[in-house]
Amino acid sequence: MKFELTKEYIDNIKDVIDNKDEAKAISLMHELHPADIAEIYDEINIDDAKFLFLLLDDDTAADVIAELEDDDRIRFLRNLPVDVIAKKFIDKMDSDDAADIIGTMPDDKKEEILSYIDDKEQAGDIVDLLHYEANTAGGLMAKELVIVNENWTVLTCLRELSRQAEDIDEIYYVYVVDDDDILKGTISLKRMILSPTSAKIINIYQNDIMSVHTDEKDEDVARLMEKYDLVALPVIDSIGRLVGRITIDDVLDVIRDEADKDYQLASGISEDIEPTDSIWRQTRARIPWLLIGLGGGILSAVVLSGHENNLAVTPQLAFFVPLITAMGGNVGVQSSAIIVQGLANNSLGIESTFVRVMRELGGSLLNGIICSSLVFLYNFIFSDSYALTMTVTVALFSVIVFASIFGTIIPLMLNRIKIDPALATGPFITTLNDIVGLLIYLSIGGLFYTYFS
Amino acid sequence: MKFELTKEYIDNIKDVIDNKDEAKAISLMHELHPADIAEIYDEINIDDAKFLFLLLDDDTAADVIAELEDDDRIRFLRNLPVDVIAKKFIDKMDSDDAADIIGTMPDDKKEEILSYIDDKEQAGDIVDLLHYEANTAGGLMAKELVIVNENWTVLTCLRELSRQAEDIDEIYYVYVVDDDDILKGTISLKRMILSPTSAKIINIYQNDIMSVHTDEKDEDVARLMEKYDLVALPVIDSIGRLVGRITIDDVLDVIRDEADKDYQLASGISEDIEPTDSIWRQTRARIPWLLIGLGGGILSAVVLSGHENNLAVTPQLAFFVPLITAMGGNVGVQSSAIIVQGLANNSLGIESTFVRVMRELGGSLLNGIICSSLVFLYNFIFSDSYALTMTVTVALFSVIVFASIFGTIIPLMLNRIKIDPALATGPFITTLNDIVGLLIYLSIGGLFYTYFS
Repeated sequence: MKFELTKEYIDNIKDVIDNKDEAKAISLMHELHPADIAEIYDEINIDDAKFLFLLLDDDTAADVIAELEDDDRIRFLRNLPVDVIAKKFIDKMDSDDAADIIGTMPDDKKEEILSYIDDKEQAGDIVDLLHYEANTAGGLMAKELVIVNENWTVLTCLRELSRQAEDIDEIYYVYVVDDDDILKGTISLKRMILSPTSAKIINIYQNDIMSVHTDEKDEDVARLMEKYDLVALPVIDSIGRLVGRITIDDVLDVIRDEADKDYQLASGISEDIEPTDSIWRQTRARIPWLLIGLGGGILSAVVLSGHENNLAVTPQLAFFVPLITAMGGNVGVQSSAIIVQGLANNSLGIESTFVRVMRELGGSLLNGIICSSLVFLYNFIFSDSYALTMTVTVALFSVIVFASIFGTIIPLMLNRIKIDPALATGPFITTLNDIVGLLIYLSIGGLFYTYFS
Repeated sequence: MKFELTKEYIDNIKDVIDNKDEAKAISLMHELHPADIAEIYDEINIDDAKFLFLLLDDDTAADVIAELEDDDRIRFLRNLPVDVIAKKFIDKMDSDDAADIIGTMPDDKKEEILSYIDDKEQAGDIVDLLHYEANTAGGLMAKELVIVNENWTVLTCLRELSRQAEDIDEIYYVYVVDDDDILKGTISLKRMILSPTSAKIINIYQNDIMSVHTDEKDEDVARLMEKYDLVALPVIDSIGRLVGRITIDDVLDVIRDEADKDYQLASGISEDIEPTDSIWRQTRARIPWLLIGLGGGILSAVVLSGHENNLAVTPQLAFFVPLITAMGGNVGVQSSAIIVQGLANNSLGIESTFVRVMRELGGSLLNGIICSSLVFLYNFIFSDSYALTMTVTVALFSVIVFASIFGTIIPLMLNRIKIDPALATGPFITTLNDIVGLLIYLSIGGLFYTYFS
């Protein structure tokens, strides 16, 4: 019932393909879900994938294409003739998936494919959907809807449903509109079954319904569906007409992508990459952050070289440089992660920035006292320099407090000026904290060594 | 239609509560979704929340309780008498939510509450659900199911549905079982409506259905539902009997929690905390990682003090310590994040560990060459010490390669011995890389300075 892709399975499939054993290939794929077939495509070369693909019936082919990763799909479609693309699957797909795929193509190819689609309603839906920005409710929605008029009777509805439902796999909601197509509410199949067939919809439908405007941002749509546990959400235009619906599986991808992106930014990776991506692609995603770190490291060297005389006299001062920079980085990353995650999950509540910074200040004083007491104890036991002990203790405390406040304020500030606050986590904040931490450490060191030596 | 919590709104609510204006409070809450009311509870004190709560009708009260954050709920329930808890909402809730709530209570309170529940079927369902581990399919599932027998006709089914459906908000699937309660498949309401009423279910139901065993891990359930775009998934016991169903909204929480946990571990936070949690709670979640960092910093100091003589002769060597440690940390975090995310999203494919490490080695050579060339250039221009230039260049290259391999292998290893690989990201890997990076740097420094000075 569940499928797990193994090396043996792939080797077996490859053998079947090498032998051009079409019957065996068809029977193997017949047992599989389209999502499983898409996984297999990831592991074999494009010609082998094409061989398998051309054996699929049209509906399965459409589903497999919809399940492929974006990059794989583009690469795959480049190898198929335009009329096959149009007739074999664009025609059979849900309008939102079809529009997503056509949206990634160059303009001339777009029009050519659209002209090959036999179902003119589908072609029209796709053209409508292409107008919306990808990261809005309009870009997420599909046009497949089950719609009834509020003035119909239950009997008319049930008849009409049999007609409309043909194209639609699962009916989550039946939407109720008025004569001008304005969304009025929903009626469940359950309600219809339980009501007399002569009942009028207007008297039995549910009118407290949530909907979003086509311009709503996809992340806000996701948050809404998550908060209110919705499996489907109708989309309306600016005068309230029902134009589409978003289902939970589309939103799941948005949630996953957002969480992944935040995590990747926090880890210093600037593009969405997979472990199996090429070395070039991975390097392109990683090198920008490494260069920031490199620049920061060189700046740190400049800062330290400015205190060359101090270091020559008291090389012990250098011993605690890694401690200071590491702790500044760790504390800063923690603080910014709490804010970034709070912004992403909408869990910051109504607390003002001032209250939040004060809370962070309180926490950092506590963390600072604990950590600097421990480092004081260590130095008190193992070091004979009072100046060094005091420098490390006071500097560590200062760096922890500074990094906390800094890590809290930066993402809040970025968020206010509409820059992704997740940029503030990871290498950016670590690098900045390294440099500022060093400056604090060396300044305090200068002070203590002047007084106590 | 959409609700946004503002400071003004809370102030308004607080005024209403202070004036004990019950009519106004009821009308305000009547406009809100239970999830919105739960958000308000987060922002007001427990007595005020209790005042609002006791004004709610039982169904809304049950929904609000289900929507509260775990901590808030426990705190809130502690203030309510046991019989109110049982009758006002445990009785009205979906069985999975009810079991989750009762599961967090001490044993004696559990039994007391169960004895107060009027609906004995609900009480029985809850007792059944309490047997399952929280992080398994059994712990996630609810007992509310719409079930028909394969030998019934469509007419019998529709009648039976009217009876069963009373307790259930939305019907996603109607499950088909045989006389022994063994799960056979599903039948959609759409299919029933489209079939003649005399048709037998056994002839029209869909038998290719996915299900999971009660012991299946929640993360695997989430992955399955996500991969196959399922909105509901039936749960079976060890002989195939249908015992419950999991809906997508339960799984959404699992996905969100897992992504949040990985992100928090990568940022050095060991418990699930919210930005609005108390200072004590936040410190408890942060201090373990800070202590690891502190220990690492002290170890680094020990390593550096072992080279005190070198540093006294050539203090310039200390200048590049932050560069080396920062780059080791950054590279290590990147590498481990790629693996951790690959494991979480199941996107590692069938590539063997060896191939993956080789790929990472390739990438690290590229990153190493780019970064160390730049640092060579910098030192070539600005430094007059050939030994320093060579030390920094070669050490940086070595540290990048080492940290990449290390960051790749550690999470894979942890995963193999069933420890959460996300532990390997963040402070743990940064701290380890700091120390090893320093050792590499100082050893290479020792070598070059012996040869070239």
